[in-house]
Amino acid sequence: MNDPRYDVIAIGNAIVDVMAPCDDELIEELQLNRGGMTLVDPPRARELYDAMGPAREISGGSAANTLAGLAALGAQCAFIGQVADDQFGRVFAHDIHSVGIDFDTPARAGEPSTAQCLIFVTPDGQRTMNTFLGASQFLPADAIDEEAIGGASVLYLEGYLWDPEEPRAAMRRAIETARGAGRKVAFTLSEVFVIERHGDDFRALIAEGLIDVLFANHLELAALTGLADFEDGIAALRDKVPTLVVTRSAEGAVAVSAGARAEVAAEPIARVVDTTGAGDLFAAGFLFGHVRGEPLERCLRRGAICAAEIISHYGARPEADLQALMAAKLG
Amino acid sequence: MNDPRYDVIAIGNAIVDVMAPCDDELIEELQLNRGGMTLVDPPRARELYDAMGPAREISGGSAANTLAGLAALGAQCAFIGQVADDQFGRVFAHDIHSVGIDFDTPARAGEPSTAQCLIFVTPDGQRTMNTFLGASQFLPADAIDEEAIGGASVLYLEGYLWDPEEPRAAMRRAIETARGAGRKVAFTLSEVFVIERHGDDFRALIAEGLIDVLFANHLELAALTGLADFEDGIAALRDKVPTLVVTRSAEGAVAVSAGARAEVAAEPIARVVDTTGAGDLFAAGFLFGHVRGEPLERCLRRGAICAAEIISHYGARPEADLQALMAAKLG
Repeated sequence: MNDPRYDVIAIGNAIVDVMAPCDDELIEELQLNRGGMTLVDPPRARELYDAMGPAREISGGSAANTLAGLAALGAQCAFIGQVADDQFGRVFAHDIHSVGIDFDTPARAGEPSTAQCLIFVTPDGQRTMNTFLGASQFLPADAIDEEAIGGASVLYLEGYLWDPEEPRAAMRRAIETARGAGRKVAFTLSEVFVIERHGDDFRALIAEGLIDVLFANHLELAALTGLADFEDGIAALRDKVPTLVVTRSAEGAVAVSAGARAEVAAEPIARVVDTTGAGDLFAAGFLFGHVRGEPLERCLRRGAICAAEIISHYGARPEADLQALMAAKLG
Repeated sequence: MNDPRYDVIAIGNAIVDVMAPCDDELIEELQLNRGGMTLVDPPRARELYDAMGPAREISGGSAANTLAGLAALGAQCAFIGQVADDQFGRVFAHDIHSVGIDFDTPARAGEPSTAQCLIFVTPDGQRTMNTFLGASQFLPADAIDEEAIGGASVLYLEGYLWDPEEPRAAMRRAIETARGAGRKVAFTLSEVFVIERHGDDFRALIAEGLIDVLFANHLELAALTGLADFEDGIAALRDKVPTLVVTRSAEGAVAVSAGARAEVAAEPIARVVDTTGAGDLFAAGFLFGHVRGEPLERCLRRGAICAAEIISHYGARPEADLQALMAAKLG
């Protein structure tokens, strides 16, 4: 096995976030799934956009956000995902290229447009996401660059993308490729509704030993295991995946690997501005340490530091110098 | 003359700002006009975008920013400007509609795209703008809604848009319309290069008594009058326009009207994040007071408060509740 060319290669939705602050009344009026992610069709997307205040557009997408964090930390990364041949597609590609991430999935001509996520941010910093998947759901299996996947230490997959059929097939092929090349597979469960729809698939992947690092939050852990109690959930999964990482918002995170367990508190910050990307950036920090073989505690701390940076401003892509931040916080 | 339907109707470039922080070295490397606005063609725009870090997209355009400030303060406003029928055009239209501004100039089909301004923001908060005018420069004279202009207390025009030929013709027609309806005309000189190219036009408009409120910064004042000394410049213009407003960055602003003179210091702020839109929002605050017949000092204070808000964050559209800010600062 050659030395890996990439630390992490990820497959995910290629999304531009359209974000605006809003008050709690608007969330109720529009009957939004507060704090969650909801898939919307074009008419509903238009209705929500019309109701939204002045917005800003910032590249997003869960796995892409994680890679942006990894790249900011100094990792070598590549991304596979589907944009349309439109302005938002060029925005997404620019933003990912500009941080040094390889991304060469060809843009898809015609309709639908590049995926957009309409994000309403309430005064408590909570984000409520409404995603129009657009071109993203048409990622074809032949977009899987087997050479690149074989040359990456970790293949990182987002559960969100398990929902549409074509990308699911693409990801299954990518898992095979990574496994065939002796690489690790990391997976984030993304959101409870994905587990409700595809939990059997995920449990099968885990049972087959195809997932080396599993990321979940406490709600997703409960949904996947069917166990409401946090510790019961951990106990049910800890021996089934080599590395299990579970975040629980303000209460920090827990990781279990090779029988060892570590915990980290949430990194204190002055004010939660926008929680968009908190989980994505936690994964970035954790994976950065993980691919370097760092102790579990240190991986968790890196995750907590990255998550704290991202929720202190609008948008799910890092703004601070993460390497300097790590140096200051970890020495 | 009926009661005006609008406080201010503006004609300006319809631009989406593409903004990213950068270091001073990049400004030099790309040979940018630091602190200024430069028009760029598509190849140069592509070159600059490729060199830019991860960006965010926020609606901009000088006069449109001013209207966004006025609307946030509670004024009734309308905008005339040309977008293309593309995603950035829809972003621009959404953002201006979402703050209650009337805007119904039809989008222009085909190439070029909606105008974009690539803004590099250095660590000192200074913005360096590179504008691809795109569809904006094709605003046709028949886009001028004479009824709307006749129904607005003030017609506000940006000098930037005097440069391309079609919008210049449109603005001349708008001035005639406003004058014919007994309304006021306010004009911002926008940028020194515009004065270098069209100073004769501007001096003629002033000489003909067609400009009631003139906005300039100290550099534009010098360029228009040919007088390097600030006070000489003021003296040369003060009797030629009914209301003259001159900003001078951190040194505050001066206004002269009907023989009276007032000054205001810059509003103190914790940190200058991004100066994009400072002049635009100063104009918003001033005009808000002006259309209400407030004393000159109070108009200037409103301008300074709005400018301070806009430079404390990225982007040239207000984020804070400007009405609450005014109430807190002015009582």
